[in-house]
Amino acid sequence: MSTKPPGGTRDFLPDEIRRREYVVGIVRDVYERYGFEPLETPAFENIETLLGKYGEESNKLIFKILRRGEHEASGEADLALRYDLTVPLARVVAQYQNELPKFFKRYQIQPVWRADRPARGRFREFYQCDIDAIGSTSPTVEVEQMAAVGEALSRLGFRDFKILVNHRRILSGLLNVVEIPVAQQESALIALDKWTKVGDKGVEADFAARGIDSLKATQLLAMLRNIFAAPDEVPTLAGVMISRARLDELRNLLGSRESGAVDCVAEILKLVRATPVAEHVYVDPRLARGLSYYTGAIMEIAVEGIGSLGGGGRYDNLIGTFLGKDVPACGFSLGLERIIVVMTERNMFPPTVARGAVDVMVTIWNDEGRGDGLALAAELRHAGLRVDVYPESDKLGKQVKYASSRNVPFVAILGDDERARGEVAVKDLRSGEQQAIRRADVGQFVRARLNPEHRREPREPREPREPREPREP
Amino acid sequence: MSTKPPGGTRDFLPDEIRRREYVVGIVRDVYERYGFEPLETPAFENIETLLGKYGEESNKLIFKILRRGEHEASGEADLALRYDLTVPLARVVAQYQNELPKFFKRYQIQPVWRADRPARGRFREFYQCDIDAIGSTSPTVEVEQMAAVGEALSRLGFRDFKILVNHRRILSGLLNVVEIPVAQQESALIALDKWTKVGDKGVEADFAARGIDSLKATQLLAMLRNIFAAPDEVPTLAGVMISRARLDELRNLLGSRESGAVDCVAEILKLVRATPVAEHVYVDPRLARGLSYYTGAIMEIAVEGIGSLGGGGRYDNLIGTFLGKDVPACGFSLGLERIIVVMTERNMFPPTVARGAVDVMVTIWNDEGRGDGLALAAELRHAGLRVDVYPESDKLGKQVKYASSRNVPFVAILGDDERARGEVAVKDLRSGEQQAIRRADVGQFVRARLNPEHRREPREPREPREPREPREP
Repeated sequence: MSTKPPGGTRDFLPDEIRRREYVVGIVRDVYERYGFEPLETPAFENIETLLGKYGEESNKLIFKILRRGEHEASGEADLALRYDLTVPLARVVAQYQNELPKFFKRYQIQPVWRADRPARGRFREFYQCDIDAIGSTSPTVEVEQMAAVGEALSRLGFRDFKILVNHRRILSGLLNVVEIPVAQQESALIALDKWTKVGDKGVEADFAARGIDSLKATQLLAMLRNIFAAPDEVPTLAGVMISRARLDELRNLLGSRESGAVDCVAEILKLVRATPVAEHVYVDPRLARGLSYYTGAIMEIAVEGIGSLGGGGRYDNLIGTFLGKDVPACGFSLGLERIIVVMTERNMFPPTVARGAVDVMVTIWNDEGRGDGLALAAELRHAGLRVDVYPESDKLGKQVKYASSRNVPFVAILGDDERARGEVAVKDLRSGEQQAIRRADVGQFVRARLNPEHRREPREPREPREPREPREP
Repeated sequence: MSTKPPGGTRDFLPDEIRRREYVVGIVRDVYERYGFEPLETPAFENIETLLGKYGEESNKLIFKILRRGEHEASGEADLALRYDLTVPLARVVAQYQNELPKFFKRYQIQPVWRADRPARGRFREFYQCDIDAIGSTSPTVEVEQMAAVGEALSRLGFRDFKILVNHRRILSGLLNVVEIPVAQQESALIALDKWTKVGDKGVEADFAARGIDSLKATQLLAMLRNIFAAPDEVPTLAGVMISRARLDELRNLLGSRESGAVDCVAEILKLVRATPVAEHVYVDPRLARGLSYYTGAIMEIAVEGIGSLGGGGRYDNLIGTFLGKDVPACGFSLGLERIIVVMTERNMFPPTVARGAVDVMVTIWNDEGRGDGLALAAELRHAGLRVDVYPESDKLGKQVKYASSRNVPFVAILGDDERARGEVAVKDLRSGEQQAIRRADVGQFVRARLNPEHRREPREPREPREPREPREP
């Protein structure tokens, strides 16, 4: 029997979890500073909740769960694994509309599952970190979300990211200019979304495969290329100036069409200047985003040489499919997995993340001393240390070697002599130094040497940090 | 279309998440002080990994996932949702044996899924908080786990819990004494495990339904009752003394049978006296635990008037089914859901857990001030506050009322006059007081009034607490 995890999924061993928790901790902290509240939904939904929400291609990638009991043999599925965090949110908003605030801002950091073909960096189980704001059509919402996502990346150490913005109705306006029929527009956007990945030839072939008139497709691409004739890479031009030039060009191309959409992007561009991510924002009329539920502004965060780390947009009609009346909504999703891959490759984790799990290991001299070893461990834990007890009666050298192999910085040795004197021999495995310490002082001794900033009087053991305590400046 | 979550699952709205995170935070902190390291495994496993591991009844409760693509119509399942955290751990130990330490101690806090009939307090998706220690047969392992789980409950505020301990081979010894055939023993244990829930009549009926000789069953129950003739509820007797009396009685009943198992429990009883949970531990020969993979000591944590909050035991053969050679292992699982239910009913959460998500809301006077409002929000977030920006251009009164309805303690009002003077009007919604504050001082002003202990100079915004920083005493 194979002991590997299923294809496209991963086991996370402790070192990897520590890296993931570091990233999630920062992302959560930033999201909470922006006033987003936590939400969690079940791993699976009733299958009809998910089917038909994501567009033709995505429907096939939904994991379906067999109906149970006597129906199992029928092969029928009645549940399906969460495919993203947005559709479950829409269901939640419809279900709890009377309990939620008028402007509900939530973050959600949970895994999603997609039956994609597994590949390097593409998983069947992966975490999304989503923020969404429900209840307002104001572009303030888009701007706050761009700022939150950008600030999270900045705090993680990313410098070279761009936040791209476009508008679904600018895209449909351009499709109308070249007269691609409405019935083909969703399909055309899926093709267009891959342009920057597959290149000119690739996207033209995709348009053809989708039965879209090649003349119209060529015309569309030419128009979009033209907008990029504006000097994208001149470093002295700020993103805002580049973006304004592109907006002017779009207004020309669209004529009287969709001026509201262009105004909306212009307003976003104006407001974003008041945020910490002003210099990162660029209007990009190529940006399409694959999902079918977007209705307004669409956004994507991209890092030079890496590609997309997340994206989002406005979806003012999705909640209506559950609620019967439309509720405005906008969201942004960060891709945790790619962030971690890039941070690992670029060595962006602080050294503290790589610290081991144990501060001090209590060694056992003989079976008679075992109870006393457990008592010492309890005392050191009470002093706030992370303590392991060597479980077997092996020779001391073997015990110390084990601690050393696990990067445990201290061992506490409870020999018969030390016990008789009310002392503990404490060995610093980093320096090799060993000292006899009064038993009551061992906790403080180890703490002071673990981390100089903890050199103060022990207090009562504290509760873990309250999740909602205000952050210290 | 229904907008409820699927039967037996729940949506967790923000207030509920805050309670869950409070509990998980304390449990993690205690587990880490005991030297356990975090592990996470995928939500689903290859179906053959799970089938046949949990016993006959449990196999039916495993959620199975349809094979994808062209095979979907076949109705065949190739994956299954995680049913517990122990079998995935056994797989992980087999897969990564060369990377893991000799004594691998891990904690895992993740949801599991069981297709049980949903009922009050019984869910189809629920979290388990597991600790397991791999690689040692020493009873130190059981004792450390009892101490860790008991200390977690103590830190959460539980006082009246008992940690029950028994041994699978004591049970099989007793079954042999009354001559219940080996082939019926697994089934007999499943029945026995429900004794304290279903009572004498119920358990006798269950034995009969399982085709177990009623004379033998009656004899077994009488024997076990006899052990409890020892004065269980005399409050002056410590658990250790009660437990010793029970062990003596067991030795009598078993004669020469399974003396190693009785010695093991006696050793656990001796060692546990050195831990903070000494007074909570009781030997209980009725304890059976339903799962089939236990081989040695079994444990359960029970609260008066509530029932079980978790349990565990030694399973020295399970990893062998994956690895081909046996590796000793022992684990304990805490039931997060029941803990939260009980803590909510008993009002055990500290008031800070109920705090809202936002410290200060920035109101917008008019559309011209919107950019400046976003800038003020950025300044206050930089000062460590959790800040919301009212997104619409509603009347000020409506904005303030909204903040009040969400329990936001402060609003920052950026009127035209205040902006002209470089000030912000700050209103404390708890007292109704309003003051004009120099803009640069608003962050400090709010922080000082939010929480007196924060009344100090702002520093650089700090990173969130490192997950692995040593706890402060």
